This record gives sequence, structure tokens and C-alpha cells, in this order.
Amino acid sequence: MHKRKIGLVRVLTVKDKELLESHGKSIESHFSDLSIITRCIPDQSKGIYDKESEKAAIRKVIDLGLKFEEEVGVRAIIVSCAADPGVVALKEQLNTPIIGAGSAVASLSLVYSNKVGVLGIGDRTPQTIKEILGSCLVAESKPYGVKTTLDLMKKEAKKSSLIATKQLKQRGAKVIALACTGFSSIGIAQELESEVGIPVLDPVLAAGLFAWYLAKKRFGV
Amino acid sequence: MHKRKIGLVRVLTVKDKELLESHGKSIESHFSDLSIITRCIPDQSKGIYDKESEKAAIRKVIDLGLKFEEEVGVRAIIVSCAADPGVVALKEQLNTPIIGAGSAVASLSLVYSNKVGVLGIGDRTPQTIKEILGSCLVAESKPYGVKTTLDLMKKEAKKSSLIATKQLKQRGAKVIALACTGFSSIGIAQELESEVGIPVLDPVLAAGLFAWYLAKKRFGV
Repeated sequence: MHKRKIGLVRVLTVKDKELLESHGKSIESHFSDLSIITRCIPDQSKGIYDKESEKAAIRKVIDLGLKFEEEVGVRAIIVSCAADPGVVALKEQLNTPIIGAGSAVASLSLVYSNKVGVLGIGDRTPQTIKEILGSCLVAESKPYGVKTTLDLMKKEAKKSSLIATKQLKQRGAKVIALACTGFSSIGIAQELESEVGIPVLDPVLAAGLFAWYLAKKRFGV
Repeated sequence: MHKRKIGLVRVLTVKDKELLESHGKSIESHFSDLSIITRCIPDQSKGIYDKESEKAAIRKVIDLGLKFEEEVGVRAIIVSCAADPGVVALKEQLNTPIIGAGSAVASLSLVYSNKVGVLGIGDRTPQTIKEILGSCLVAESKPYGVKTTLDLMKKEAKKSSLIATKQLKQRGAKVIALACTGFSSIGIAQELESEVGIPVLDPVLAAGLFAWYLAKKRFGV
């Protein structure tokens, strides 16, 4: 089978190859005709977790996006971060379609329901997600004790994510958008969905869905 | 190949088999592992084109949705109308995932850009689409002389659709969401996209994408 190449930018500086490629592998396991090439930004070992770290990441994400278009011949580029850093700027500069994981999961959630709960890691839901959800954003939360994407890898994070998800449902959410791709790294969406009983959407897989569609649409089926 | 069955509800009463099944055929041509079963509501030979005709259609759409779940064993149901009639009520009553063509095309457009232009046929953009797009809805229009979905089948409709789409682009739209599935019946999205130079999204294919994803996700890959 001829596989379509998709570029993926991680906003967490990762040296471990398995961890680096985990988002790409997750997408490939669901969309078997895609081949994901991953790169990460330098010098952000805690990823994006506040205004400063987001600002620092944007230029680096744009650089990687431009390199993908120059070098690799990818059919779409995913920015694997729920804050969509650099996505708007890259859309203006590139011919290749760009997909932010934040706008992807927000958009996908609106197909399920007009009552969306957002589970993030920051004090605020990322602006892009807020803008897309508008009045359909009915509740926001974060797991207790989590401040950066690395905290999601700690043992207690699963339990506190489950508690926060249940609270979002109690507050009226009919679908949950996970607003940090660290949730994808620990592969928690399916588990939360089974426990809580409403759809829980993984931002990396949402981005994968749209990358698959855009790559397919643009170059013919 | 084992094909997944998807139910599709037309809100235009159609006797001609080819016309009736045109939305389903369009989806099948893009998603070859889906098999679409189409039914149409009775006694609405002009479809939905104002408040009254929408109100009349809602109960009929719900009836067809309930019959699909009872009889056919479909994995998702598409309501092939940009106004999403009956979609919220069906979501509450059924276990099978329901996709409205209006919410689907609106959601998909947000992955492309936060500046969406809507081309409809009514005096107003359908409420569901407005709600999903929120502040991302930058311009609305309709083709001159078109009042019902049947008018889109007339010769002059293509030209007036093109003019209206160009105006939406001039008013700042970076992507166009077609807000009537009559545009799908005449298969105009690709032509508009080529002429105007920005993505033009077909509501039936947008619904097809999400039906494909939901059917796949729910029952394993």
C-alpha cells in the first residue's frame, strides 16, 4: 500500500525515540495508509504550559513547519499541541494543509454535541479551542496536581483525570475534548470514555482524522 | 471488503431513485468501505426552505431515524440537511451516532480556518451552523434567485453560486461551508473551489467523513 506522508511537530523536546514517535504511532495505528514523520522543537523539556513557554514555542514550530514543506514532501502537517502554536501563521505561509490538534479536537467535538466539556492542563482553555467552541463550551476543568504535560505521566494523573472528567459530565458536558496532547501520550481517552460513559476525544487522533482527509482530498482518492 | 452500513435521511421527497440515492453514492465514492441506505421524508417536494417547512420536517426525520435504528442495524445515521432538523432530538433518543450535515460542514470548516464564509439558500444561515461557527462566521450569502433546493438544479444556479462564493472570499472568508445539501446534489463544491481558489466544503461529504470515523471508532478498526 502506498502510504501518504504526514509531518508532525511535537512541542515537547523529546530525546527518547519511542516517546517522540508515540503520537505518530497512535495515528498510524488508526489510519493505516498514513506514514507520520515526527520532529520536535528544541529546548522545551516541559513543553508548553503557560504564556511564556507558548510564546517561546511559536517561532520554533513555524521553523519546523517550513522545513517540512521544503524537505520532506509531506501532504499535511500536524502541530501536535492543543494550543495550536504557530498554526495560523503557518497556514498563511504554506501551501501544505496545517492541522492544529487543538482546533481539530474542538471541531470534532462539535459533531458529537453542542455541549462540550474541555479537560486541559492549564489554568485556561487554549484560546483557539475557546474560539471554536464559543457558546458550546459548557464546562472546563483540569486534573488536580497537573501543571505540565510531564505531570500527566505520573501515576496519580489517571485518577485525577477521571475525577475531573466525571465533574465535567456532571456540569452538563455531553462530550469531552482533551485539551492537551499529553493525554494522548498516556493513551487515556478510551479508558475515560468507558468509565464516564460519554465520548472522550483524543486530540492527536482528531488531528490524524483531518490529516487523513486533507491528504486524501487534495491528492485524489 | 466488509462494508459498514450507514443510514441517510433525505429531507426532500424524491421519487427518482437516482436522485434519491445521489447523496449516498457521493459518500460511497469517497469512502469505499461505507454502504449507504437512503430514505426520504414524505410530502415535502420542495424540501426545507423556511421555518414552516423545517417544523413540518422535524417529526418526519425523527420517525425515519427511529426506524433506521429498529430495522436496519446501521452504524451511524446522517441527516442530509444543513439545518440539522431533528438531530438534537435523535441524539437524545438513539444509541446510534447521528450526524447532521450542517454541523458536520461547520465543524470541518473550522479545521481549515477561523474565517468561514457560509453559502446557503435561505435568508439566514441555519441556527446550528451559526452556533458552531460563532465569531468564526465572517460572511454569509446565497445565490441570487435561489429559494429552495430545487432552484439549485436550474441552469443559472451554478453561475449565481459562483458569484456569491467570490463575494464571500472578498469579504474575508478563507474557507466556504456550503449550507444546503442541494449544492451536493449538483456536485458543485470542487468546481467552486477551483474557480475561487479557497476550499469549498460539501456538506454531504463532510457528514460522510464523520460517519466513516464514528462507525470505525465505535466498532473497532
